[in-house]
Amino acid sequence: MSDLTLAEQIFTDINECTLPGEGITRPSYSVVESAALAVVDRYAMGFGLETFTDGAGNLHCTIPGSFQTPSEVVTGSHLDSVPHGGRYDGTAGVVAGLLVLKKLCGSTRTKQAARLIVFRGEESAWFGKCYLGSLGLFGLLTEDDMKRRSVQDGETLGRRIAHRGGFPACADNCPPARSLDPKRIARFIEVHIEQGPVLHEAGEPIGIVNSIRGNYRYRGAQIGGEAGHSGTTPTRLRKDAVLAFADVMRRLEEGAKVFGEDLVLTCGVAGTDPGRHGPTTIPDLVSFDVEFRSGSELTLSLFDAFYRATIDAVGAQRGLPFMNSGVLTRTECALMDPKLHAELALHAHHVLDSEQVMRLPSGAGHDAAVFARMGVPTGMIFIRNEHGSHNPRESMRMDDFMRATGVLYRAMGGQ
Amino acid sequence: MSDLTLAEQIFTDINECTLPGEGITRPSYSVVESAALAVVDRYAMGFGLETFTDGAGNLHCTIPGSFQTPSEVVTGSHLDSVPHGGRYDGTAGVVAGLLVLKKLCGSTRTKQAARLIVFRGEESAWFGKCYLGSLGLFGLLTEDDMKRRSVQDGETLGRRIAHRGGFPACADNCPPARSLDPKRIARFIEVHIEQGPVLHEAGEPIGIVNSIRGNYRYRGAQIGGEAGHSGTTPTRLRKDAVLAFADVMRRLEEGAKVFGEDLVLTCGVAGTDPGRHGPTTIPDLVSFDVEFRSGSELTLSLFDAFYRATIDAVGAQRGLPFMNSGVLTRTECALMDPKLHAELALHAHHVLDSEQVMRLPSGAGHDAAVFARMGVPTGMIFIRNEHGSHNPRESMRMDDFMRATGVLYRAMGGQ
Repeated sequence: MSDLTLAEQIFTDINECTLPGEGITRPSYSVVESAALAVVDRYAMGFGLETFTDGAGNLHCTIPGSFQTPSEVVTGSHLDSVPHGGRYDGTAGVVAGLLVLKKLCGSTRTKQAARLIVFRGEESAWFGKCYLGSLGLFGLLTEDDMKRRSVQDGETLGRRIAHRGGFPACADNCPPARSLDPKRIARFIEVHIEQGPVLHEAGEPIGIVNSIRGNYRYRGAQIGGEAGHSGTTPTRLRKDAVLAFADVMRRLEEGAKVFGEDLVLTCGVAGTDPGRHGPTTIPDLVSFDVEFRSGSELTLSLFDAFYRATIDAVGAQRGLPFMNSGVLTRTECALMDPKLHAELALHAHHVLDSEQVMRLPSGAGHDAAVFARMGVPTGMIFIRNEHGSHNPRESMRMDDFMRATGVLYRAMGGQ
Repeated sequence: MSDLTLAEQIFTDINECTLPGEGITRPSYSVVESAALAVVDRYAMGFGLETFTDGAGNLHCTIPGSFQTPSEVVTGSHLDSVPHGGRYDGTAGVVAGLLVLKKLCGSTRTKQAARLIVFRGEESAWFGKCYLGSLGLFGLLTEDDMKRRSVQDGETLGRRIAHRGGFPACADNCPPARSLDPKRIARFIEVHIEQGPVLHEAGEPIGIVNSIRGNYRYRGAQIGGEAGHSGTTPTRLRKDAVLAFADVMRRLEEGAKVFGEDLVLTCGVAGTDPGRHGPTTIPDLVSFDVEFRSGSELTLSLFDAFYRATIDAVGAQRGLPFMNSGVLTRTECALMDPKLHAELALHAHHVLDSEQVMRLPSGAGHDAAVFARMGVPTGMIFIRNEHGSHNPRESMRMDDFMRATGVLYRAMGGQ
């Protein structure tokens, strides 16, 4: 059986593990996620790999004899999905890793210890927090995390980890201990489908990630105005919250241009107050959320200062009664290792037989970010996707997938 | 008893007719409105005036012998209120008219026939349409209007008119016939509390109205975008409905400045779609209402063209999938009679003993608009109000009120 046919078979078997409905629905730490891990376990054992489950329920597949060797190359991705997600988000990296480990295991020339980790719980859709499996791998889940409840059925993460593949000795609310020492990992490389349209738009089959964007997210920002009759209040006496909001957003949009493509700005939620707005009342409140992402912590902190200054300036210039910039939550950037990045690009040149290799940031988060933050030299390979992720229309060409697998194979020591 | 003491007594008696709660709540065509009309009727008869109720339930008070004379000067205002409204909205004009007719009636030098009409149902809050009493006076209520139901108890306007002071012979759903020929009215003058802050801000006790603003109101306008992941979609590939909305509103705000104070622009309702928005999703829809008012039909039609052009331009420049300017409803401007306006200003000069008399548009609608549209030379006198109308904090100084009454007296032939 060719690698391509084998890959298609593995994708089919994994994607049979889903809840009913359109697309793939495979909740974090659910029985269908466990079933998908079992599919991988079965293939891995068939390929002659050794497998075991760690305290956070992640599945590890290693080349025999390389387990607990001093320095390993590691790949991995996740098998959970958002509700009604696509067939390749996470799964592509797992299947790529499985094919690479099969090939490395069968090669007499391989000296490098190598490991595939199949993560659980990468999507925040189910427990309100992302990277659960990879955080658990490094002992970074907290007791509070273990009390998080699934939106699926209200069960706690602690019970799910204890009963769905975590070590049976682990108490329900006791976070799993560290299962892997980051110092023993030579490098971590994740193959993942791109969740945006950049590669598709550029006509590139694969790309090398240079950073995972961090973000600043302000929720519940408010612009205050003064209510009044829309006919009887002259313009010069108005304090109109909608016009002030428009002013703020236009300034932010212009300001963001200074930072180029690296910075993306989104106001996904905005509106007047349904409890008291009306077509003939001057609006006295606009509530909104603002998020901006960048691969540079410096850019994030500069744009953050600009955001706050803009809120203050518009409030002062329009004499508004109050401006509230909202409650901030931050996610730090995760930089990919420059040396590994260069090496991945070199492998991509060979595989693609192309002079140019696309380098791009990852706007979405990935388990690789946890490895980068743990100090592991980390890299990512993206596969193009015509329709974006987190929807059933997500698409991947199998020849693109095989190219990404080829780059991963070389980066993990294959020749 | 001085006129001031008498006026205060009449305000007190009328404002005892209210439903419980903060401020004044006197629904259109309700028993409390009827009770307020009965208070005026009692005072009018005490002053030696003749009174009758027309087919629309309005109360007419005339100087004896002047009823059905060829040419009359008419004043009037309404006694209904919005829920939890103020003590003077409408009532001020009724009390001013009552004081003037009392004085004219007692003067041996008065030759001019004069009439006070106490209108019912001016506020749209109860039956969803304004000017019910004054429209009914001229036979302008339709069969459909008679089927409108009160938000208070669901009873139809037809039943209310038939049972609360309309002619008993009037069938429930038969609109009242015209009770007054507009050609017989020499002029109509309404005293009203200003519903905005213009006189208060200018420090002027009263002002002369030059027009009642018309308006264009667009409901359910929509700006379409394309949803996408807030992290993975580059700025250049985004179609962001919120940023486009901000662009539209900023252009409209700038465009409105060209027309000066006469034009007021309000977007009182705006928001992303609560069913599908989120802080990490590029917004694909903003829905909003836009209203603009002016005393000039030309200005309204010019700004209307600008609004539509702006919607189209922003949609085209940003490559948005759709833009929908919304469903338009229009209310025409009502111009005050220039000759009467000049005369009212002259009387105000005398009464205020001031060189300057404030002239201002009315942003809100009034029964006077119906008279103006019927071709009656119409004028309005505004009284300053510190806290705006349609709320319990509405306020009026009695010396301001007496000045407005003085102007009305002169304009109705008093000397």
